[in-house]
Amino acid sequence: MQHFASDNYAGFCPESLTYFLQANGSGHEPAYGDDSWTQRVCDRLRALFETDCEVFFVFNGTAANSLALAALCQSYHSVICHTLAHIETDECGGPEFFSNGSKLLVADGPHGKLTPEAVEALVTRRADIHYPKPKVVSLTQATEVGTVYSVEEIQAITTVARQHGLRVHMDGARFANAVAALDVHPADVTWRAGVDVLCFGGTKNGLPVGEAVVFFDRALAEDFAYRVKQAGQLASKMRFISAPWLGLLEHDVWLRNARHANAMATLLAERIAGVPGVRLMFPVQANAVFAELPLPAIDALRARGWKFYTFIGAGGCRFMCAWDTSEETVEALARDIRECCASAAHS
Amino acid sequence: MQHFASDNYAGFCPESLTYFLQANGSGHEPAYGDDSWTQRVCDRLRALFETDCEVFFVFNGTAANSLALAALCQSYHSVICHTLAHIETDECGGPEFFSNGSKLLVADGPHGKLTPEAVEALVTRRADIHYPKPKVVSLTQATEVGTVYSVEEIQAITTVARQHGLRVHMDGARFANAVAALDVHPADVTWRAGVDVLCFGGTKNGLPVGEAVVFFDRALAEDFAYRVKQAGQLASKMRFISAPWLGLLEHDVWLRNARHANAMATLLAERIAGVPGVRLMFPVQANAVFAELPLPAIDALRARGWKFYTFIGAGGCRFMCAWDTSEETVEALARDIRECCASAAHS
Amino acid sequence: MQHFASDNYAGFCPESLTYFLQANGSGHEPAYGDDSWTQRVCDRLRALFETDCEVFFVFNGTAANSLALAALCQSYHSVICHTLAHIETDECGGPEFFSNGSKLLVADGPHGKLTPEAVEALVTRRADIHYPKPKVVSLTQATEVGTVYSVEEIQAITTVARQHGLRVHMDGARFANAVAALDVHPADVTWRAGVDVLCFGGTKNGLPVGEAVVFFDRALAEDFAYRVKQAGQLASKMRFISAPWLGLLEHDVWLRNARHANAMATLLAERIAGVPGVRLMFPVQANAVFAELPLPAIDALRARGWKFYTFIGAGGCRFMCAWDTSEETVEALARDIRECCASAAHS
Amino acid sequence: MQHFASDNYAGFCPESLTYFLQANGSGHEPAYGDDSWTQRVCDRLRALFETDCEVFFVFNGTAANSLALAALCQSYHSVICHTLAHIETDECGGPEFFSNGSKLLVADGPHGKLTPEAVEALVTRRADIHYPKPKVVSLTQATEVGTVYSVEEIQAITTVARQHGLRVHMDGARFANAVAALDVHPADVTWRAGVDVLCFGGTKNGLPVGEAVVFFDRALAEDFAYRVKQAGQLASKMRFISAPWLGLLEHDVWLRNARHANAMATLLAERIAGVPGVRLMFPVQANAVFAELPLPAIDALRARGWKFYTFIGAGGCRFMCAWDTSEETVEALARDIRECCASAAHS
Repeated sequence: MQHFASDNYAGFCPESLTYFLQANGSGHEPAYGDDSWTQRVCDRLRALFETDCEVFFVFNGTAANSLALAALCQSYHSVICHTLAHIETDECGGPEFFSNGSKLLVADGPHGKLTPEAVEALVTRRADIHYPKPKVVSLTQATEVGTVYSVEEIQAITTVARQHGLRVHMDGARFANAVAALDVHPADVTWRAGVDVLCFGGTKNGLPVGEAVVFFDRALAEDFAYRVKQAGQLASKMRFISAPWLGLLEHDVWLRNARHANAMATLLAERIAGVPGVRLMFPVQANAVFAELPLPAIDALRARGWKFYTFIGAGGCRFMCAWDTSEETVEALARDIRECCASAAHS
Repeated sequence: MQHFASDNYAGFCPESLTYFLQANGSGHEPAYGDDSWTQRVCDRLRALFETDCEVFFVFNGTAANSLALAALCQSYHSVICHTLAHIETDECGGPEFFSNGSKLLVADGPHGKLTPEAVEALVTRRADIHYPKPKVVSLTQATEVGTVYSVEEIQAITTVARQHGLRVHMDGARFANAVAALDVHPADVTWRAGVDVLCFGGTKNGLPVGEAVVFFDRALAEDFAYRVKQAGQLASKMRFISAPWLGLLEHDVWLRNARHANAMATLLAERIAGVPGVRLMFPVQANAVFAELPLPAIDALRARGWKFYTFIGAGGCRFMCAWDTSEETVEALARDIRECCASAAHS
Repeated sequence: MQHFASDNYAGFCPESLTYFLQANGSGHEPAYGDDSWTQRVCDRLRALFETDCEVFFVFNGTAANSLALAALCQSYHSVICHTLAHIETDECGGPEFFSNGSKLLVADGPHGKLTPEAVEALVTRRADIHYPKPKVVSLTQATEVGTVYSVEEIQAITTVARQHGLRVHMDGARFANAVAALDVHPADVTWRAGVDVLCFGGTKNGLPVGEAVVFFDRALAEDFAYRVKQAGQLASKMRFISAPWLGLLEHDVWLRNARHANAMATLLAERIAGVPGVRLMFPVQANAVFAELPLPAIDALRARGWKFYTFIGAGGCRFMCAWDTSEETVEALARDIRECCASAAHS
Repeated sequence: MQHFASDNYAGFCPESLTYFLQANGSGHEPAYGDDSWTQRVCDRLRALFETDCEVFFVFNGTAANSLALAALCQSYHSVICHTLAHIETDECGGPEFFSNGSKLLVADGPHGKLTPEAVEALVTRRADIHYPKPKVVSLTQATEVGTVYSVEEIQAITTVARQHGLRVHMDGARFANAVAALDVHPADVTWRAGVDVLCFGGTKNGLPVGEAVVFFDRALAEDFAYRVKQAGQLASKMRFISAPWLGLLEHDVWLRNARHANAMATLLAERIAGVPGVRLMFPVQANAVFAELPLPAIDALRARGWKFYTFIGAGGCRFMCAWDTSEETVEALARDIRECCASAAHS
């Protein structure tokens, strides 16, 4: 049975698995990234982004984001992010741990997105040494609520960041979904729009483990390999982390996977949009549907075996679609939502 | 071509790969270890060790050891280890990073092994607050130089540790090789001998990624899941890390893999022991052969394409055997060593 | 000229200075707290609190609070505090630095005070490992806005804390002012009310440097001396930090100093309460007056040479009274406020 | 009674105390270093060093050295120092704590001094990411064993450091004693000899508390004020830390104090050099005398009330002279050493 709790419930996509198995079949390979597979993937990513970026592979998103942020600021600096950013809400203090104390300064903004004004307000609020000096803006693309920054929105924020000497980090755990949604070149929504570092998520796009940290400004990557090593994020048998990326990158499988997940979210939203008792909470732009449902309907859905996240007190539900979520599953969930809402209305 | 640089040059052993693929075929699975595979593996490890231990999976050995040590001591405490311990020589300050400053106090000892006397000397040397208070003894089993602590040797050290209120950590990156070498029950060489926490290596035993941290004293594991999460070591698609362990544990594949690697090292040692110019540096008890070779012989071996580690200045070489190192490869290396040493003697 | 910017603009009160000079006159003294003065002060504090507490001296409030919090929680735990708490707003990430990443979870509450409900809400909001586990409640007494928790208010919060296994820390940078305001025994508002650790401020009470960290639960102070040492907070010539406390504690000079500062704040509040254009922002319970003034009046006061803090955008001003603030100064400021507000009204 | 345990047993020298009292008499002063005294002292130090250096005051030597080192390297870098360096032996892991894990790489060298060869050997030993990249050389001037680097010795080391891209830190807890011993301009033994940062000790030179961190390369001081603040080393009533330096700097009191302490050490060495049973362990160049004494003589000296440090197992004793150590005290100690050694010889 498929679920909507998270896109990380899904498995290993076949195109990437093929490369994983090939990498295993190639006999002994040098460790720690000195293998031929890793070199190929890094080159492939440079080609994709059309720039001579520096690429590092780490095990998961907590580490990718935390290490990238730690590379951009010292312990007495601060990182500006949205109140709902994953680095603020769901990393158990990971960014603070890796940076040894950098504080996150949070701002609200509609649809889970930062605004240039909010960034500017946090930067200019104070300039005394009792307030950790803002040094980085962190954007989540796609956001935690399934929306997507347009190229112009990103540019507006990176412009403000530059004016104040801040660097720009992009948490791209669902970068593929955002690019697929915007239908732009990946360079246009990253370095050409002023992003310094991208944490490019592989896990939610069909890999078993592993994210890429992409530094568009190579100067920022100085000694980053040491940082990765010290922090326990250097895979000895690196090829098993890197080779599967070839499967994602070839024939734009990463975009195909993302487009499919996005399409499933759109389908689900369409199916439940008009259902009495259901209110869509955010525009559905990537692979998530956030909807308020009657509490009894939520219970009833759970009783039918569906797994998904809810938010305390309210009736907010998150339905996440993955690269392998089938149309049948979406239709089945939509049907159950309709039925459970109808029952809830009558009870 | 196979190499002797490290046992992490080898790939994914077939028995474990089977479970990896099964885990992928099981559809959507809850994330972060709440899947059925992870539960099974933990139970299997508890059965193996014949005790109700707490088990956590992390991505690599740096993290396993550093997190385990951080759980045993505060930043102002210290960890006693051998001068040659991996945590001291090859983690780029990982233990200090994860613990926020715990100092490693190093002691020498024959054959890469700590002695009770050396531990006691470090503990009792000073008792002022300018010296970080010793809190943990870390043993590497098998050691970095391919030797193995006997059960009695471990007991002697843990006894001293207990007398002084220290906890005992075992870096078991090559635990399998040690157990295979000693031919003892894994419980006898760990908790029954006084070990509190074992970092049980999977990567060098045939997995692509992933180590198990096994707390025999469950009290020490309090909130360890949070620590793992914050430090970027919690796999979202955990089943891909955990399920392959079933392949290792079933039918004692882990021991079979280790025994084979050990046997290859023994074979290599036998083949080169009497070669003029070759001096074995340490008893060959696990899967490593350390040998001094004439410098020209080393160069000649490299010119023939062999990869292995050497130590600066000296002519010391490390030849590491893996679970998949073939007898043919060993014979070929031995032959080349003989030839290169002979040439070196004549030049 | 005296100012109202901060109570740390004031100097060294004469009673304490006397002991400082005596300590200097006593010849060579053992370092790091092994001198006779430090022992005397610790005993004196135990007598004051009527309990066998553990006492440590550190250099300033940032360190006192950060070290105490670090002793109560691990990096993956969290500390609940008020949005306006100094540890959140004015320590440049100090608590996160000392604890290597413990996150502060902030709650609002009237008059700068936490409520039991707010604490409970934060503790029970989530129970997953992606959210740093709440482990400490931190109360500021007197608060950052010049209000004071009653004994009952503290008990209500510590009761909730105990129910959820949390420890209670009190930031007492202005503890003297709070005790003076409440007119209670210092034990009643600390350990008898459920407080585990008090950071007892000396600097704002008339010392040049130095705060006391008082552990009422001695178990929490285990190895704290090492923590202090490692963090650069152990004074070698400790007697110069500790001896002046004798001057504060003898004849209750600490309370006399605090009562005077409180009285000056009350006087100022009375003098300006009815002035047109002035709005008192919080009850004046300790030594601070927060008042909204017309912006032109603020500028005019500054032009007359007065120093005080204001808050961006609004017309909020903080007037802080010290142990040595004279009645004449208060009257002069009040007169100027009246005049400047009158001018502002006519312009 | 005066002692020889440490130069931090001494008190506050009168010239500095005068300024301390003046600073107290000047009424309210802005906090956190924005006072007029601090400005004056910083200018005075710039004049002393004849360069536009950046100056910060912190509370003690642990913090001064640890913060300076943390400013020069990241957590995955390493610091080269002598085996006997205070940062290695007596800071309870302080440097590792402040830097979040930077490892100290130690080298031996005669008379407690690093050599260019030893530095080079550590830098070039390895170049892989498993070894924390050397980034700083730390020199202790005067050394922990009472010797002093000549200008040429410093230059030789800083030259090697520069060649390898390393920065140079000087632990100058006893900088005054070194300058007095060498009789050179303080600039010649610091920035003109290639030193980037000096931790200039005040405490052992006659202050009650406080050290100056002097950055000769201002670029290295970027945002250092934030670092100081976050780490709990920013004094609110800064004038009490800074003003006393005026007393040290005026009329070269700092050198007079140091010369006196050095002279007392020389006197002691002369008095005991020929005593049977006594062996001087190091050249006496600053204010320390290290001497081996018969164990019974050590016990006898202690029985007569003398305090001094000894080293476990051996008969090594450290006799430290302070700015206020009197000739009478030295003669009395020398007499007792002679008597106790004589008794020891007969027993």
